[in-house]
Amino acid sequence: MLKFILIFLNIFINIKNFFHFGDKMIYAFGHKNPDTDSIISAIAVSKLKEGVIPARIGDINPETRFVLDSFKLPDPKIIVNSAENKYWLVDHNSEEQTIDGLDEDQILGIIDHHKFSRSVTKALNIHTEPLGCNCTILAKMLFAESINVDKNLAGAMLGAIMSDTVIFRSSTTTDEDKEVAGKLAEIAGIEDIEKFGFEVKRMACNLKSFNPEYEVEKDFKKFETGGINYGVGQIETVCLEDVQEAKSMVMEVLENKMEKENLHFIILMVTDIMKKGTELWVTGAPDFVEEAFGKLENDALWVDGMMSRKKQVIPQIDRVIENAVNV
Amino acid sequence: MLKFILIFLNIFINIKNFFHFGDKMIYAFGHKNPDTDSIISAIAVSKLKEGVIPARIGDINPETRFVLDSFKLPDPKIIVNSAENKYWLVDHNSEEQTIDGLDEDQILGIIDHHKFSRSVTKALNIHTEPLGCNCTILAKMLFAESINVDKNLAGAMLGAIMSDTVIFRSSTTTDEDKEVAGKLAEIAGIEDIEKFGFEVKRMACNLKSFNPEYEVEKDFKKFETGGINYGVGQIETVCLEDVQEAKSMVMEVLENKMEKENLHFIILMVTDIMKKGTELWVTGAPDFVEEAFGKLENDALWVDGMMSRKKQVIPQIDRVIENAVNV
Repeated sequence: MLKFILIFLNIFINIKNFFHFGDKMIYAFGHKNPDTDSIISAIAVSKLKEGVIPARIGDINPETRFVLDSFKLPDPKIIVNSAENKYWLVDHNSEEQTIDGLDEDQILGIIDHHKFSRSVTKALNIHTEPLGCNCTILAKMLFAESINVDKNLAGAMLGAIMSDTVIFRSSTTTDEDKEVAGKLAEIAGIEDIEKFGFEVKRMACNLKSFNPEYEVEKDFKKFETGGINYGVGQIETVCLEDVQEAKSMVMEVLENKMEKENLHFIILMVTDIMKKGTELWVTGAPDFVEEAFGKLENDALWVDGMMSRKKQVIPQIDRVIENAVNV
Repeated sequence: MLKFILIFLNIFINIKNFFHFGDKMIYAFGHKNPDTDSIISAIAVSKLKEGVIPARIGDINPETRFVLDSFKLPDPKIIVNSAENKYWLVDHNSEEQTIDGLDEDQILGIIDHHKFSRSVTKALNIHTEPLGCNCTILAKMLFAESINVDKNLAGAMLGAIMSDTVIFRSSTTTDEDKEVAGKLAEIAGIEDIEKFGFEVKRMACNLKSFNPEYEVEKDFKKFETGGINYGVGQIETVCLEDVQEAKSMVMEVLENKMEKENLHFIILMVTDIMKKGTELWVTGAPDFVEEAFGKLENDALWVDGMMSRKKQVIPQIDRVIENAVNV
């Protein structure tokens, strides 16, 4: 029996050495609740930097599943923190968005398109650009270093760009995103970029994976005016009809959030990118919202042309509140 | 008379338009009290990015004068802040090191080899790498984009690398600095890199420009142990004999600083990179220093092989203080 155990142990040690288990590995990974940009960015870094293994710190959503399957790319490995490993951080840099317990010494570099919000104690490899998508930066880096971007990687990176820029309709979209998307589409042999983008975004409509808490929190901001505290979140979609099916679940999340965070009311903007308008879903005092935008029906109101929280919601709501408070 | 004024006014307007006075200009500049790396980095960015004018926010020191003159490069333009302009920040990023009154919206990008220590409110162009010299990063970027680096720019960038890495002897020197220096030397036709580095560093020995306050502050850190507050600064030089001539001025600065900042004592490490050792200049309680390193003569003591404050000074001093406090 002991002999068998020793043989198995020996085989195990050999396998372990063969695969470098226990050695320091280098992984690239994107943020928590990874989106398509985070997953495809991790794969792109593995082409850019030698010895880097694409990874992720969360589940693959249906949109990303569609992109990975369409372009025959294997799923990045799911990882948990290990002090032994080194990491490239992509599509995120803040401590809240990264793997738990990450030490600065484990960071080999950061490639990101978000605001730099990490406090560091020494010089690091940091590359950030204010572009609509992290894959745009990575494509530029791959092109600059003349690294071959094959048809499948190009298609997947294009998918990430179309997703992150919401088919070029997000306000963060830049000319560089469009230019790089054009180059990638050419490599991937995709003729109608918009049509492809719509296919990708439609996958996010799969309500099986729709997580109301996550969708509400994803882009939620709090405001205060005249002593009134309120919150405004925003979901961008290409499939308002599908999202409608989840409305009762979302409203419950909003009610709980309003109570827990002592807010007077919450407006969730469900913005339809294709129809270019927003349905407002409202909990709490509807009077302010009705005075600003019109009568609610079932706690909801469609406003044609409304896309921007900053320009088309907050100033209007603040004005109504200020008038009410002054009277 | 009016006619003359009108003619002159017209000429002035034409000149103004010709030189784009009043238009938004794009400048690249390094840190306050610019060193050779800051000045040459600003010139390198003007090759890398179209329409960028090399600039500086301080006087040119003798070392940099030697490099600019040797390679026939014009002095970058001295600038003061103007809300009209946009800037590339090189070789620095912190708010203390930059031009006064700089607004985040004026920053087009940051290329730096220091710790990122600026708080930002949105995504920015940031490119930092933990290398010994900022010109190493810029040379890599120029090479990656296949931009022609001519003989003179290559020589000047090599000068910056030799200066910032203290002829490859600074602890921040990386293999990449050496590799890039080799490439630049080849372009510039410089065969003996070390000899050239020594020529560059010798220029910093010109005491005409030696500013004792600046030299003391440049790399000064405060420490506390057993209730004793003290400071340790470091100057790295290749010309200890020349620096000796400034000793009385430096000691006066140290005395004033000690009093003003309520320090028990100050040690200034005057490290000779070529001789690989340090002369300690001491104000305040010499007993701690003498017990740690040996007898002072004229407030000074040469310690062979001492190069590192962190490893060869602080632990030894702390031990002596702790023993004294415990007894």
